[in-house]
Amino acid sequence: MKVTVIGLGLIGGSIALDLRKAGIATELVGVDMNKDNGIKAVELGLVDHIDEEGTALSTSDLILLAIPVNAMAAFLPSVLDVVKKGAVVIDTGSTKSMISRSVKSHVKRGQFVAAHPIAGTENSGPAAAFAGLFAGKTNIICERDASTDEALAVALKVFDALGMNTIFMEPEEHDKHVAYVSHLSHVSSFLLGQTVLDIEKDEKNIFNLAGSGFESTVRLAKSSPDMWAPIFEQNLEYLSQALLEYIMHLQKFHYHLQKRDTKELHRILTKANDIRAVLDGIQIKKQQKENSISK
Amino acid sequence: MKVTVIGLGLIGGSIALDLRKAGIATELVGVDMNKDNGIKAVELGLVDHIDEEGTALSTSDLILLAIPVNAMAAFLPSVLDVVKKGAVVIDTGSTKSMISRSVKSHVKRGQFVAAHPIAGTENSGPAAAFAGLFAGKTNIICERDASTDEALAVALKVFDALGMNTIFMEPEEHDKHVAYVSHLSHVSSFLLGQTVLDIEKDEKNIFNLAGSGFESTVRLAKSSPDMWAPIFEQNLEYLSQALLEYIMHLQKFHYHLQKRDTKELHRILTKANDIRAVLDGIQIKKQQKENSISK
Repeated sequence: MKVTVIGLGLIGGSIALDLRKAGIATELVGVDMNKDNGIKAVELGLVDHIDEEGTALSTSDLILLAIPVNAMAAFLPSVLDVVKKGAVVIDTGSTKSMISRSVKSHVKRGQFVAAHPIAGTENSGPAAAFAGLFAGKTNIICERDASTDEALAVALKVFDALGMNTIFMEPEEHDKHVAYVSHLSHVSSFLLGQTVLDIEKDEKNIFNLAGSGFESTVRLAKSSPDMWAPIFEQNLEYLSQALLEYIMHLQKFHYHLQKRDTKELHRILTKANDIRAVLDGIQIKKQQKENSISK
Repeated sequence: MKVTVIGLGLIGGSIALDLRKAGIATELVGVDMNKDNGIKAVELGLVDHIDEEGTALSTSDLILLAIPVNAMAAFLPSVLDVVKKGAVVIDTGSTKSMISRSVKSHVKRGQFVAAHPIAGTENSGPAAAFAGLFAGKTNIICERDASTDEALAVALKVFDALGMNTIFMEPEEHDKHVAYVSHLSHVSSFLLGQTVLDIEKDEKNIFNLAGSGFESTVRLAKSSPDMWAPIFEQNLEYLSQALLEYIMHLQKFHYHLQKRDTKELHRILTKANDIRAVLDGIQIKKQQKENSISK
């Protein structure tokens, strides 16, 4: 089928590579507001050619949107306006409530699938794209009932081709969870970078003294502000809540530190260690239950 | 020479492997309060055999201490008490002021070299040790003038064998810098883990939704509380300052988020992006200067 990818950065470019590899895209058209990105994407072989938005949208069977979430919410209704009958439009935004609301009453709502393939790196632009970025990761589809069965089937075929495991959620639920599990990490990392840059006026010190721990924790501070500022704003409510809870934990820790409360500091760190088991996919409560039974 | 490593975890075990490889250690003795660690370390070939502390210390040419910093400060004076003439004692603690103070007036102070080889992973224990952990990383030696030339020469030979680049600092300066570049990252990561665990009562959600970004940011939350709680306490003053500045940045961000101040949010994220250049070893100010000249 003829596929158009709008936004030829890390996400759009990587999807294009995988869809060609899987044989789903027989013709790959790129659309990007930034001319240099378009040229680069063709040079890199991410897409076959660049086309004008109007032509690309009205002639494609599948349209993938991989642009910042503010542009997505603004642009999506006019995309649906012009796509042909039976064409499927899929977005890839990291927020879902505002994007879903933008086409809630659109006559062609059924042709749209609201998706969030959870993958990425701290790099951006067409040169950052690579095949296999999404393999083994989770994709979330929201408002599945608002899409037609045909559109949903195409979307699942696409995310299967990317090697993703798709789960379903409502937009509000999605936005709340990602506020904690993704957006808060980005904020904490950006501001950790800022705090260290503020103090270490001589950057040589940071370069010399930064262990792999600092590099890992601050990695996300390299992420694209064009992409992330709109995500934070669109998820203001839940992110704000997550941020206040994080600040509260930091303040509590600071209080116990000041009191040299060794026992409490140790307890806090030990509790946070549970994240290891969680990331390994082990259910902590279950495990603790089993441990307490076996004792 | 006969080398004793006290503390057979990630750091002590990895040093032992490298010193044997480099031919510096002809006999490797291990000492560990935890019997299981001792047995494991011999099994893994980290050390040749385990010995009693008294015997090991009084007969070795080189003693490396790789135990939590509170134990280090408490234990170090009695180590120096019993080592033989000409033997060299090196610590590897992540704080330096309190450890240096603990032997400030010791008659054998010259035989001690206060060091901080900046390397590690989130794993701990003898099984976490591996050869090459320190290669290409920075080592800091504090109070170089308080060590004899002979002791310093041995220490430099050791850190060269580990493949490290050694720089010199005073203890207070060291502790201030690492508060920002290392200790704060650990606190931010531990408490990010805690915040997410607190909200996501169903850990399956974290496991499903966590992208590589979250994993990277929260990696340090897996670190050993036995090692880190004492580091935070020993570096209370500087860490407390770093933590308050971090909290201030988070609060400012929250303020601008609430006001939907797009421009300011974008500015904050863009400024934090500078960390990319710093970690790549590029001096930002210089680069900016050159850019402004060339424009």
